Amino acid sequence: MKLNPADGNFAQSIRTALGDDILHPVEERYLEEPRRRFAGHVGVLALPKSVEQVSTLVRLASDASVPVVPYGGGTGLVGGQVMTDGPAPLLVSLERMSAIRAVYPTENILIAEAGAILTDVQAAAEEADRLFPLALAAQGSCRIGGNLATNAGGVNVLRYGNARDLCLGLEAVLPNGEIWHGLSRLRKDNTGYDLRNLLIGAEGTLGIITAASLKLYPRPAETGTAMFQVASPDAAIKLLALARDQVGEGVSTFELIHKQGLQFLSEVLPDIRQPFDVQPEWMVLIEFGLSGSASPSDALMALFETAEARGLVGDAVIAQSEAQRLELWAVRELIPEGNRLIGSVSSHDISVPISHIPEFILRGSEIVRGLGDFRINCFGHLGDGNLHYNVFPPQGHSRSEYDAQRQTVKRLVHDLVHEFGGSISAEHGIGRLKTDDLSRYGDPVKLSAMRSIKAALDPKGIMNPGAVLKA
Amino acid sequence: MKLNPADGNFAQSIRTALGDDILHPVEERYLEEPRRRFAGHVGVLALPKSVEQVSTLVRLASDASVPVVPYGGGTGLVGGQVMTDGPAPLLVSLERMSAIRAVYPTENILIAEAGAILTDVQAAAEEADRLFPLALAAQGSCRIGGNLATNAGGVNVLRYGNARDLCLGLEAVLPNGEIWHGLSRLRKDNTGYDLRNLLIGAEGTLGIITAASLKLYPRPAETGTAMFQVASPDAAIKLLALARDQVGEGVSTFELIHKQGLQFLSEVLPDIRQPFDVQPEWMVLIEFGLSGSASPSDALMALFETAEARGLVGDAVIAQSEAQRLELWAVRELIPEGNRLIGSVSSHDISVPISHIPEFILRGSEIVRGLGDFRINCFGHLGDGNLHYNVFPPQGHSRSEYDAQRQTVKRLVHDLVHEFGGSISAEHGIGRLKTDDLSRYGDPVKLSAMRSIKAALDPKGIMNPGAVLKA
Repeated sequence: MKLNPADGNFAQSIRTALGDDILHPVEERYLEEPRRRFAGHVGVLALPKSVEQVSTLVRLASDASVPVVPYGGGTGLVGGQVMTDGPAPLLVSLERMSAIRAVYPTENILIAEAGAILTDVQAAAEEADRLFPLALAAQGSCRIGGNLATNAGGVNVLRYGNARDLCLGLEAVLPNGEIWHGLSRLRKDNTGYDLRNLLIGAEGTLGIITAASLKLYPRPAETGTAMFQVASPDAAIKLLALARDQVGEGVSTFELIHKQGLQFLSEVLPDIRQPFDVQPEWMVLIEFGLSGSASPSDALMALFETAEARGLVGDAVIAQSEAQRLELWAVRELIPEGNRLIGSVSSHDISVPISHIPEFILRGSEIVRGLGDFRINCFGHLGDGNLHYNVFPPQGHSRSEYDAQRQTVKRLVHDLVHEFGGSISAEHGIGRLKTDDLSRYGDPVKLSAMRSIKAALDPKGIMNPGAVLKA
Repeated sequence: MKLNPADGNFAQSIRTALGDDILHPVEERYLEEPRRRFAGHVGVLALPKSVEQVSTLVRLASDASVPVVPYGGGTGLVGGQVMTDGPAPLLVSLERMSAIRAVYPTENILIAEAGAILTDVQAAAEEADRLFPLALAAQGSCRIGGNLATNAGGVNVLRYGNARDLCLGLEAVLPNGEIWHGLSRLRKDNTGYDLRNLLIGAEGTLGIITAASLKLYPRPAETGTAMFQVASPDAAIKLLALARDQVGEGVSTFELIHKQGLQFLSEVLPDIRQPFDVQPEWMVLIEFGLSGSASPSDALMALFETAEARGLVGDAVIAQSEAQRLELWAVRELIPEGNRLIGSVSSHDISVPISHIPEFILRGSEIVRGLGDFRINCFGHLGDGNLHYNVFPPQGHSRSEYDAQRQTVKRLVHDLVHEFGGSISAEHGIGRLKTDDLSRYGDPVKLSAMRSIKAALDPKGIMNPGAVLKA
């Protein structure tokens, strides 16, 4: 279906319907994305204040066959928020719809508008003595609508699931402009197809999420954090199983870290305090959140003792204060920044079945090092099978020298992931970066079903064209 | 789209493609459902042994425009498994596809074929020292494919979620006969629309689930079970919050039981040992499953002491042996059987936001008792906000005397549920029983989207016609 640009006439139709205040000049930030792989273009920028305004905007766009790109915090890493070609779209930023509409502590539920910043959602939960467990590097600027549209992951997925698992209901505007009032506060509701989960992870291609009903959890009475040196990725997997035997769901974080990440920090962020005097080959950041009167520090010590007896771990640091806890977290959280400053040749947000992780790491290393003297920083959410597998130039060289090899590196890494039954996008989504990969590695029957669903709900193809499915 | 009956010619086309062994005579059990509200008809019964055979069957049905009804254990309570009118369908029973294909203890994953009986899945998990937590009354005969197609709930949803939450991937045959190979062993995979969750809960109207990749959990080191008298439903909600403060996710079951359920057991199953000498008005069955060295009995005792000091509970029985534990469970599990023997005027599987439960129970009682001298047995999964709210004739009268009032009772109960933002089907699904209710209470925008999706994936309308969406 032919689409038209969001031009002056279209802007005028919006002003006529909704007044002057809704349109705003397009600042640079709406055209960029964090990794600068895509530069977007925008015809008209609208900042609606209500779901009714979003509905009117989408209806006008549908009538005029104008593409619509929903915009949250702009922190997505796969270009889902920037339309790079085709007719200039209407960008609908949810930033003015940032209210926490309600908190129901007895029900462990919070209702937030799509534009609420993740840390504001976390803070509103905390004020009610509850936990909203979604936590990720961009939490200070990403918005919950974007988190849901991309089914964001992060460091607490192991215990609490990803964004999908934390959502009970949605309010959304569908591609025809109609409003779905689905802000359920129900834990169980088997009345028809799962439209909620269809919109979650659809990256704005099936509608615009305007608000969400979110699950809260009791805040763990006490939290304990530690960094353990582990003998190998295999030892780390065994350590995780042991930790779960000992404290069950109390394991809230289990992050694998490789020496390379620490070395990058030494190189580009030398003021960061490192956990060990000698950087170990592999380590894990572990966090226990326990209820009642159990002591997480004691539990971490007990884990260490059993694991040491089994030869799984070397040295360990168990945080003895909040300051020390934050120091350990800072190491993990600054690794992506270290990577950014070094500059990767190719980054991969992948997952494989957990038991294949050791072999994947081994074979990945052989394959990548067979291509050149690359450095590999492999880290991430071990318990979810989700690794950030990033490939860097040798020391003293810059990424730009390896532009010609980027596609080969990416292809071989993704081929290996596919061979292991893994995913080429574990938590970042497809966006515009990985549409070719999805065509290549995706199940053709699923892809065909996706195209049918897209055509059924968005027959004009106005919603975020070019994202997820190639136009 | 006009559909044709599965007649002799159609049967012959199946025999030609797949041999004689695949077709079987239609026994009575394939035409019934547990509550005898619907009597089905079947043209041809096929018992495939592989996903390829299912694919061929669906393709033949699609070519001939013959309706297809997928059949699991036949235990569904809303008639999704019996087609009552229109052209006689092809019934595809998955009973021969009952293999546990693989168990991956390290990954906490099990892959089962759709025809595997739920207790067999549980047993396979236990053999690997793991827990598959889905548990419900029909577990000895229901099959996992049906559990997923209806997004089954049960007694462990509070801790582990419903069937949807326990599934990582599916193998399924879509309405065009194509096979989706989606048996993922990944905890995180953000590559496109959530086809898995679309098929889960679609009750066979969007395809046939043939196998599933399921989540396993560590088995709790120790389990403790107790029955607490509670002062009121409100006290029960407060008790649940207290229990979660004390043992977090360790609360695996929290079932509200009303005196009426015990009285029915006294009446029709007098040999069942009752937990209290004097039947209390309200009680809860609580189960703690704790990891490590924590003692669930001690934890239950600690909960009782705090709750007693706050005036939430009266007497309590904490099981001191496995035999006593099973006795407490028997009371809960026989309540539906007691209901069946008494014979309800109207049964409602409903949910409301948890904080509205006390008011719902109060107002429901006023409304129903305003209609006559009915007895109400209200029980269920309190922590999920899911009540089985069943209305019975006065003692000495039979349900058949109240046939004329059934619709009024149902309507008023469902109106009240709707007023509280609740669901008219919390865990049983829509099937054929509740299609009118769905039209009445469902969000029209969601219903319209559902119809679009159905038409897109099943343009001929062959998959389980008349279920979920009215034909």
